[in-house]
Amino acid sequence: MSRQGSKLWGGRFVGDTDPIMERFNASIAYDQRMWDADIRGSKAYVKALEKAKLVTTVEMNQILQGMDQVCDEWSKGVFVIKPGDEDIHTANERRLKELIGAAAGKLHTGRSRNDQVVTDMRIWLRDAISTLTENALQLVSTMVERAAAEIDVLFPGYTHMQRAQPIRWSHWILSHAVALSRDVDRLNEIRKRVNVLPLGSGAIAGTPLEIDRELLQKELAFDSISLNSMDATGQRDFVVEFLFWASLCLTHLSKMAEDLMLYSTKEFSFITLSDAYSTGSSLMPQKKNADSLELIRSKAGRVFVCWIHDDTEGVMEAALSPDMLATDLAYYLVRKGVPFREAHGISGKAVFAAESKNVALNQLTVEDLSVISPLFESDVSSVWNYRSSVEQYSAAGGTAKSSVTAQIEHLRNWVKKQAQ
Amino acid sequence: MSRQGSKLWGGRFVGDTDPIMERFNASIAYDQRMWDADIRGSKAYVKALEKAKLVTTVEMNQILQGMDQVCDEWSKGVFVIKPGDEDIHTANERRLKELIGAAAGKLHTGRSRNDQVVTDMRIWLRDAISTLTENALQLVSTMVERAAAEIDVLFPGYTHMQRAQPIRWSHWILSHAVALSRDVDRLNEIRKRVNVLPLGSGAIAGTPLEIDRELLQKELAFDSISLNSMDATGQRDFVVEFLFWASLCLTHLSKMAEDLMLYSTKEFSFITLSDAYSTGSSLMPQKKNADSLELIRSKAGRVFVCWIHDDTEGVMEAALSPDMLATDLAYYLVRKGVPFREAHGISGKAVFAAESKNVALNQLTVEDLSVISPLFESDVSSVWNYRSSVEQYSAAGGTAKSSVTAQIEHLRNWVKKQAQ
Amino acid sequence: MSRQGSKLWGGRFVGDTDPIMERFNASIAYDQRMWDADIRGSKAYVKALEKAKLVTTVEMNQILQGMDQVCDEWSKGVFVIKPGDEDIHTANERRLKELIGAAAGKLHTGRSRNDQVVTDMRIWLRDAISTLTENALQLVSTMVERAAAEIDVLFPGYTHMQRAQPIRWSHWILSHAVALSRDVDRLNEIRKRVNVLPLGSGAIAGTPLEIDRELLQKELAFDSISLNSMDATGQRDFVVEFLFWASLCLTHLSKMAEDLMLYSTKEFSFITLSDAYSTGSSLMPQKKNADSLELIRSKAGRVFVCWIHDDTEGVMEAALSPDMLATDLAYYLVRKGVPFREAHGISGKAVFAAESKNVALNQLTVEDLSVISPLFESDVSSVWNYRSSVEQYSAAGGTAKSSVTAQIEHLRNWVKKQAQ
Amino acid sequence: MSRQGSKLWGGRFVGDTDPIMERFNASIAYDQRMWDADIRGSKAYVKALEKAKLVTTVEMNQILQGMDQVCDEWSKGVFVIKPGDEDIHTANERRLKELIGAAAGKLHTGRSRNDQVVTDMRIWLRDAISTLTENALQLVSTMVERAAAEIDVLFPGYTHMQRAQPIRWSHWILSHAVALSRDVDRLNEIRKRVNVLPLGSGAIAGTPLEIDRELLQKELAFDSISLNSMDATGQRDFVVEFLFWASLCLTHLSKMAEDLMLYSTKEFSFITLSDAYSTGSSLMPQKKNADSLELIRSKAGRVFVCWIHDDTEGVMEAALSPDMLATDLAYYLVRKGVPFREAHGISGKAVFAAESKNVALNQLTVEDLSVISPLFESDVSSVWNYRSSVEQYSAAGGTAKSSVTAQIEHLRNWVKKQAQ
Repeated sequence: MSRQGSKLWGGRFVGDTDPIMERFNASIAYDQRMWDADIRGSKAYVKALEKAKLVTTVEMNQILQGMDQVCDEWSKGVFVIKPGDEDIHTANERRLKELIGAAAGKLHTGRSRNDQVVTDMRIWLRDAISTLTENALQLVSTMVERAAAEIDVLFPGYTHMQRAQPIRWSHWILSHAVALSRDVDRLNEIRKRVNVLPLGSGAIAGTPLEIDRELLQKELAFDSISLNSMDATGQRDFVVEFLFWASLCLTHLSKMAEDLMLYSTKEFSFITLSDAYSTGSSLMPQKKNADSLELIRSKAGRVFVCWIHDDTEGVMEAALSPDMLATDLAYYLVRKGVPFREAHGISGKAVFAAESKNVALNQLTVEDLSVISPLFESDVSSVWNYRSSVEQYSAAGGTAKSSVTAQIEHLRNWVKKQAQ
Repeated sequence: MSRQGSKLWGGRFVGDTDPIMERFNASIAYDQRMWDADIRGSKAYVKALEKAKLVTTVEMNQILQGMDQVCDEWSKGVFVIKPGDEDIHTANERRLKELIGAAAGKLHTGRSRNDQVVTDMRIWLRDAISTLTENALQLVSTMVERAAAEIDVLFPGYTHMQRAQPIRWSHWILSHAVALSRDVDRLNEIRKRVNVLPLGSGAIAGTPLEIDRELLQKELAFDSISLNSMDATGQRDFVVEFLFWASLCLTHLSKMAEDLMLYSTKEFSFITLSDAYSTGSSLMPQKKNADSLELIRSKAGRVFVCWIHDDTEGVMEAALSPDMLATDLAYYLVRKGVPFREAHGISGKAVFAAESKNVALNQLTVEDLSVISPLFESDVSSVWNYRSSVEQYSAAGGTAKSSVTAQIEHLRNWVKKQAQ
Repeated sequence: MSRQGSKLWGGRFVGDTDPIMERFNASIAYDQRMWDADIRGSKAYVKALEKAKLVTTVEMNQILQGMDQVCDEWSKGVFVIKPGDEDIHTANERRLKELIGAAAGKLHTGRSRNDQVVTDMRIWLRDAISTLTENALQLVSTMVERAAAEIDVLFPGYTHMQRAQPIRWSHWILSHAVALSRDVDRLNEIRKRVNVLPLGSGAIAGTPLEIDRELLQKELAFDSISLNSMDATGQRDFVVEFLFWASLCLTHLSKMAEDLMLYSTKEFSFITLSDAYSTGSSLMPQKKNADSLELIRSKAGRVFVCWIHDDTEGVMEAALSPDMLATDLAYYLVRKGVPFREAHGISGKAVFAAESKNVALNQLTVEDLSVISPLFESDVSSVWNYRSSVEQYSAAGGTAKSSVTAQIEHLRNWVKKQAQ
Repeated sequence: MSRQGSKLWGGRFVGDTDPIMERFNASIAYDQRMWDADIRGSKAYVKALEKAKLVTTVEMNQILQGMDQVCDEWSKGVFVIKPGDEDIHTANERRLKELIGAAAGKLHTGRSRNDQVVTDMRIWLRDAISTLTENALQLVSTMVERAAAEIDVLFPGYTHMQRAQPIRWSHWILSHAVALSRDVDRLNEIRKRVNVLPLGSGAIAGTPLEIDRELLQKELAFDSISLNSMDATGQRDFVVEFLFWASLCLTHLSKMAEDLMLYSTKEFSFITLSDAYSTGSSLMPQKKNADSLELIRSKAGRVFVCWIHDDTEGVMEAALSPDMLATDLAYYLVRKGVPFREAHGISGKAVFAAESKNVALNQLTVEDLSVISPLFESDVSSVWNYRSSVEQYSAAGGTAKSSVTAQIEHLRNWVKKQAQ
């Protein structure tokens, strides 16, 4: 008998399979991670077979008990993959047959590897999504609480890596938390489309047997049943969609990590990394690299707590510089009726004057300023206060304390709602 | 005065901008398509400025009327872009100033190009999404009605480009319609995240002025207001997300088009393309290429109707071949109690026997078959009926007439619901 | 002592590494495949250390023998990876120390993991490239010989999946062989840039010790020495470049495979797949899928020989149809002085006339044709000969027998030259 | 007459083309940039037609003069694209016909748009590659001369954004120049494969006429002639290969720009951007953004010269800090016979001791150090010299003055050789 005769599909073949082809075609190295999903799928399926009277109750129980034993072997790490096991589905059924004999041959009645594979993938991915959702929520929650705790720390906001405006450190944290909260929203939407039962779709035409698909849905905790059998077995959109999600979420984590790496340079010195999340160099004894920042993952919530030790507050506020108030200087004039475009130009000239005299912007005298515009008067000194500058931004979404507190409140409620 | 002095941001600069840098930095070639969104954004913003008493009612009306005139120039195709117009925002404001003078300089008070750009993008994309949703619904609807009209046409279902099982032609159409209906669902989800007002976020810190963001939201018909100003001006997730959607949707259209191209080859001859959607060759006079199938776009609904003329039914059913019933032959044995794995092997042997004798599978005699398995009896002849084969697949999602009709009903209702 | 104290870089650290960080940071699962390259690199390096008098001859011999033993353990599959082995470099040095004691600590003198890692990668990739070059040449050679053997088989050439012009089957084979021969050219160019010695570049600054880089080059068979140490340790262009090559080459193999899949459909039936490279379906007993065509890899040369059995010649020539000679019909008129654009239009009308009468193009009578153009005379019958049509294309690169033979000769010589 | 009848391929069509299809199919918006290549290709082709006696000398001259006039219209910007011009090839031939009448119809004899399009693309891309090569060489040359001029400036080398080792500023410049020189090498290799004549390949089968392809090669300055006509018209590898090159080269420019952006932050302050290559903010008057660094292109050579003004030397050297000499401290011990691994650990402990005492590494007394290792003696003070530290790295590729000078010499020669 040909070797192909022993495969799940060998009846019509006479030639042997080339051993190269065997190796090409095998997917067991990748898909064995779905062993648990495959077993759960088969256990549900045999119940539907029994209801359809395609296996007897006795056969069903044999199969269920056999599958439990297979499950047990995987759990304990003692399941042995054999040379002919081209994928996890073949491996599990081969083992089942060794354990319970002929009845195993009935398990695949009316099922195709097409609907079996995609059922396994959907179960596996749905469970992975649950774990990811939980971890992402934990991270957002940690960030929100950190923002709440450090709400009074001011911070130089950057754009294009150049100092832009004074903001709150919490405002920066929340800008990343908000992005991550949208990722959780997206993941919930994707989950709906992942958690759809394809089992009972056969190869492409559906199943001609009395398989109760609602029973399968309930047994396997799917949210709904696939509408069209060709679509069910042929589409992998749900995988593509998830991969996109993963890359978008990693982009968010990576943007945050990039900022933190910058803030941890000697030159910025805003944050200091804990030894527990740093690595060194095999050549340079003094090096402490922020490797963890490139490696934030499922436990990111925990990691975030540990990154920074003690008082960086002073350092951050020390990095605020008067030219970051040039916008406020323009608004000073706007409040005196100058059109903004003109006020912007005047303030820009003040910046240039300060640079020319090699002094800070707030060290220009009222005389210096009045040369540029006669509207500058002694009350201009009120502009040079970082904290009151920040407090102006109290409109929704701004960096004033009241506004940041409102953001914290919003996200706290959102986290709570997600957890329900 | 330096040329930079005439820019929106030139106050603090003394050197001239290198002309190469001017060309590098300009985005007007790309962003001029957002002229309408930019004008609508500015008109809403000046109303908020007036409410905050940062412009007078007279100034507001001047700006509103000026902007209407700018709008008019764009509509008529007579707006003239000038050398200094580095982007659409600069161009519109420059033109406004020419039309109404100094008051134009107040329009940008408390606004940054950061929040202006992203407001324009969100308005523009939101409108594009509305158009796309409408077109996609029209396409799905056309496909569903076509499936309903041709529900009695049988068709050879393919996997790996090899004939697999007899199905309905409608089943194939619906497998693509279902994928497209998920695309519409995704687009609705994305729209929610696109249609969020960022205006009032300034550069990064928010706005320090009394800008009423709820007024802006209402004026511009946004669904919600951005939560954090840094996130609002810095994030472009909504664009990335939309681009992913577009590539996924095009994948679906392209899979459908690939199948249709195959079905329109001389060798398959299932469908004939209308001249109106075909092109020829400048060298080979007989060529008729299915170029349209690579070019399906917004009017895909209309195109789909026109692809195929008249009676392809006979051709498709002629392509059904008895070996596509080999699965049914296995089920014949399953119904006599043979485990499926064994039945599959026996049916495979029958396929091999027919190939060896160079006859069709249904031309094997009962004697031929009984050599392979004594369970084959004269009633095996009932297997060789394509239509009754197809009718077996009546479980949800299958290719039986009742099941396909249910899919049609489901999608018809879904389309109706979307249109509400 | 802290756990970090036991790492290659732990001196300056006091806190323990978080176990999560350990797992994040480990690369041993990926880089263990470079065990051999790592050992060869270290053996060469210790010779340079001895020459620089940084290790004694005795220490060098200890290290060399120790490394041979490590090599032996990997070869036999008995090397045990321990929990602290974060990468292959750490693992090998850790094992060396267990085997020979303190002298192992001198091996890393003046070396950084930065230059060690990239040295290993370059050795490993260079060797992989050698294997790939060999396999690609074997494949091209097989294809050329197959083209030579079947040079007389005519074949319908397709564009846009529609029948275009009669060509030789060999012409199709060679069109793919030529693409693959360019891939080999590209691989040779990339090899030059891969095979450059980075060892001796330290972390970024170079090495301050008397390391003889030319000795290292000779020992490790590199073609040249890196010019700048920062570039040497920081750049991974050679990897990116190779990955691009791999994706381009796979595109070529996949285009060829796609054509073959199409030609193996029931509808085309040009080729028949050997059972040895096909797989079946677990549900549909009659299925024979061309899975191998998606899986062509290193042994593609061998696979190509085996794909097709016996006489497909008749089938292919049967697929030639008279309308594929419409271009020849135009040329018939060109030879009578009609401008090509006009001749093309006339031939197109003949195609339309034949379709309207539902006859083949060559079944139009001279009378039918002369209605379209009076220039058609009885000698038009000479046009309807596929073989003489094909023989016209004798210019360089064409499908005439002489031209195809010249292509075969060219590629045979190219293969010979590569092998030298 | 149908509108398709007026197309280059309309003879066999009866239905009108749907206007949507017209718009879908048109490529004139993209391919009009190839107008010059298209004209040159046609001028060469008509000479081959004349040699083959397929046009008379008179007709050839008519076509040549007509094409010159078309060329003239494009040059002056007065060529008018008409609604039916679906691509540049159609547009030019349509205009030719208007200018010279019927003879224009002979130009396409034996040519297909398949070989015409790809000929145009290859001419166009080859010329673009010449420009790019020139610009890249100019940039490398500028960088090399800048490195030569500033060879004495020391600089803190960074890895993972953390200070690593003192190097020369020139060493950093050259690390980028070396990468760009490889890009030029790659571009030369690609040019060979781009500059291959496809004209004379027809649609797929070759040309059946007496077209002298060597004449075409010479007229159009191609390096070689395509080997197989199917490959010639069907392959776009040369485009893919060039696109890969472009993305790799842009990666190099972008890495350099990222470093420079970091060095231009207030916190680093190593370089100051010229106003000519900076832009501002419409909201924040003080902002000066390094936009140019994201926009480096063909004139990058010129840009590079202009980035930085005056004396940054002091600032860079001020950023060197004693802990960057921790590697040297380890080598101090290695020179006293301590195995490197042990020396690395001791030096790491010294770093920790200095951090604990809150002093710089070089402020530890010999007493402090001797507690860590008795081998530290008073001569340890020799370690704390940045310039002599840098001078140690004199092996090939290192950062010592002699080594950097050698790199400069090497690249200067390479530039000279390229220009020949």
